[in-house]
Amino acid sequence: MSTLKGACIIGQSGGPTSVINASAYGCIKTALENENVTAVYGALNGIKGVLDDNLIDMSKEDPTELSYMKYTPSSALGSCRYKLKDASVDDTDYKRILEIFKKYNVRYFFYNGGNDSMDTCNKISKFMLENGYECRVMGIPKTIDNDLAGTDHCPGFASAAKYIATSMMEIYHDARVYDTGMITVVEIMGRNAGWLTASAALASAKGAGPDLIYCPENDFDMDTFIAKVKEIYAANGKCIVAVSEGIHDKNGKYISEYGNDLSNAKDGFGHAQLGGLASYLAGVLKKETDAKVRGIELSLLQRCAAHSASQTDIEESFNAGKTAVEKATEGITDKMVGFVRSYDENGNYVCNYELFELTVVANTEKKIPAEWFNETKDGLTEEFVKYALPLIQGETQLPKEDSLPRFVKLKKVKATV
Amino acid sequence: MSTLKGACIIGQSGGPTSVINASAYGCIKTALENENVTAVYGALNGIKGVLDDNLIDMSKEDPTELSYMKYTPSSALGSCRYKLKDASVDDTDYKRILEIFKKYNVRYFFYNGGNDSMDTCNKISKFMLENGYECRVMGIPKTIDNDLAGTDHCPGFASAAKYIATSMMEIYHDARVYDTGMITVVEIMGRNAGWLTASAALASAKGAGPDLIYCPENDFDMDTFIAKVKEIYAANGKCIVAVSEGIHDKNGKYISEYGNDLSNAKDGFGHAQLGGLASYLAGVLKKETDAKVRGIELSLLQRCAAHSASQTDIEESFNAGKTAVEKATEGITDKMVGFVRSYDENGNYVCNYELFELTVVANTEKKIPAEWFNETKDGLTEEFVKYALPLIQGETQLPKEDSLPRFVKLKKVKATV
Repeated sequence: MSTLKGACIIGQSGGPTSVINASAYGCIKTALENENVTAVYGALNGIKGVLDDNLIDMSKEDPTELSYMKYTPSSALGSCRYKLKDASVDDTDYKRILEIFKKYNVRYFFYNGGNDSMDTCNKISKFMLENGYECRVMGIPKTIDNDLAGTDHCPGFASAAKYIATSMMEIYHDARVYDTGMITVVEIMGRNAGWLTASAALASAKGAGPDLIYCPENDFDMDTFIAKVKEIYAANGKCIVAVSEGIHDKNGKYISEYGNDLSNAKDGFGHAQLGGLASYLAGVLKKETDAKVRGIELSLLQRCAAHSASQTDIEESFNAGKTAVEKATEGITDKMVGFVRSYDENGNYVCNYELFELTVVANTEKKIPAEWFNETKDGLTEEFVKYALPLIQGETQLPKEDSLPRFVKLKKVKATV
Repeated sequence: MSTLKGACIIGQSGGPTSVINASAYGCIKTALENENVTAVYGALNGIKGVLDDNLIDMSKEDPTELSYMKYTPSSALGSCRYKLKDASVDDTDYKRILEIFKKYNVRYFFYNGGNDSMDTCNKISKFMLENGYECRVMGIPKTIDNDLAGTDHCPGFASAAKYIATSMMEIYHDARVYDTGMITVVEIMGRNAGWLTASAALASAKGAGPDLIYCPENDFDMDTFIAKVKEIYAANGKCIVAVSEGIHDKNGKYISEYGNDLSNAKDGFGHAQLGGLASYLAGVLKKETDAKVRGIELSLLQRCAAHSASQTDIEESFNAGKTAVEKATEGITDKMVGFVRSYDENGNYVCNYELFELTVVANTEKKIPAEWFNETKDGLTEEFVKYALPLIQGETQLPKEDSLPRFVKLKKVKATV
């Protein structure tokens, strides 16, 4: 074990989740208690906070107030979608990061985000190594998309999955209230991986979920879809469909692009911005049936509904942040903390915290195994339910004030050298 | 106290809420335990279940299973939007209802719904009286819209309000995650009364809610709206707006009709079907600012999100159903159970169960008092918060199975004479 004394920076990146702050809190709390960590800084708006010398001193926060981070959704330190260039092309940003690291004697860098963030970790780690600056870099995963390679699942996924399954059960009951025909199309997040949409199968497993589930892992065929909905509607007078925002036809064209002139918009990483799919499909089905058709977009509530988070997810996310600090201060660098699943002698799910190579994780997308879909690719098998169900267990211990969430309010005291 | 022995029918009508089944359960449980009630029948799909002789025998349900009704959203007995004609115009339906009442010796009729349902109660009660058939009729209110006259508030409102306030707080955190410009428009239910949209003010009172709140009680002026949003956005880089689906201009034209060709659709009662307002306003603001603008429709989750219901609302709803049976078996008829608020010596909110005239309640809409809006009519005063906050207290005791809701599954055994 090699001892390295110095300050640490924790930053958050990418889209919000219900539990990304649980990870950040696990990291901050553990770092504040570690004798080798001389100062704990939060980078405001991720790597941009480092570049802009916009750091806050986490030791200045009230410990009780800080503990509310564990249950507060979105990124309490602020996020960014800033992608570092390759250092071989332009090393301006890296030189600036090194300058800031030296200014504050930063020897530990923890970055809390998705696969783009793991790429950022990887690039910073390599640059520091090449420039002879000793700094241990650890990635702390988060993504509701559950698409990071290596780890069994990702912090944030389970809480979103729980919200989706619960909401689908409630929609199921709502959609059955009248004795008139009703078709409901629910649009769920997930560009390339269908994990979130597949979570609707947890509601189906309880007898109160969608009849059909379409994920981007499989090509979507409009004619087959319409025929399937008509068949179910004819038999039951109701049909509920869950669709991933990223479903596409066999030529790779997004179904949302069929009717959506906004589909050419791109986000900061050049990904197409999707949306409006539920309304579009509802419009298609209205023409094809006599049913009332409703399109529902779960929208951003699926990623920030902390009130319905999984306590398992919260604890695992906290532990991911804690493990990152423990391992880094023990001498490990250039890894991402991840989860390996096992089952105890009673068959109960156990989460083990292990380390994964950043180079493997960065920019790889993990999709749902093909064999977890049913034969007609419009539903999930028992295997998926067996995978996801342990992850959503436990009700959030979110503190309340007047029966409303008590979310963290940070003072954000500017760091000084 | 006049004793009347006979069967009772309970029916549910109108749109779903998170707690309408709590009322029905309060009614059913109390009726099953009352010695003067010889049988307890559920009318499937409201008054249509009576007309179609489609009744189920509630005594055939397992008591534990039945108790899950208390926490199950939507209408477990099924609902309808069937409006009875005036008996003076066409008394076919009334004659049929009387026939069914005689067939099953129904002496108690409980109808669980909104103002249209109270109208139905009123008409049936009058017809039975005129035809010399002794039958006690009681209305049990429900409506997320909170627009029934007389009662302090309506069962169902508080749970929707709690969901809306909680979701707004989560959206607030989500919308602040990046350091880039962001405007969010959240569309909330409420055609003519703004109670639900106003509930977003509970989030603002906690420092994490919308900047602007627009309700249908006030005329909406597009130019003033755009100027206000621009001003807030210029100052903060963020702006969150809550709008009621029913906002309209000074000529009474719905804002949703400005850009929505679906706006001419009518529901079963001839009300215009609204929707797409958030997208429309987001589109307007996109042209007017450089911000990323997001439109979010809370959609039907606001009325069926039982997982976030107010336990106060659940208990009050249960007691409304219970009180209806108690009062009817004591000899009272032709009333609606309602709530009168008082405060105890410590200033704590107390709910009192009282009876209201059906003729007053039926087809009257209660709106937010003008003085509870701020001067610029884009926010609520402390008075509203003081009114609404006690109603949302307490976390639902919804039973869970595998950390997902355990909703009721009725056997629905057909009633026999």
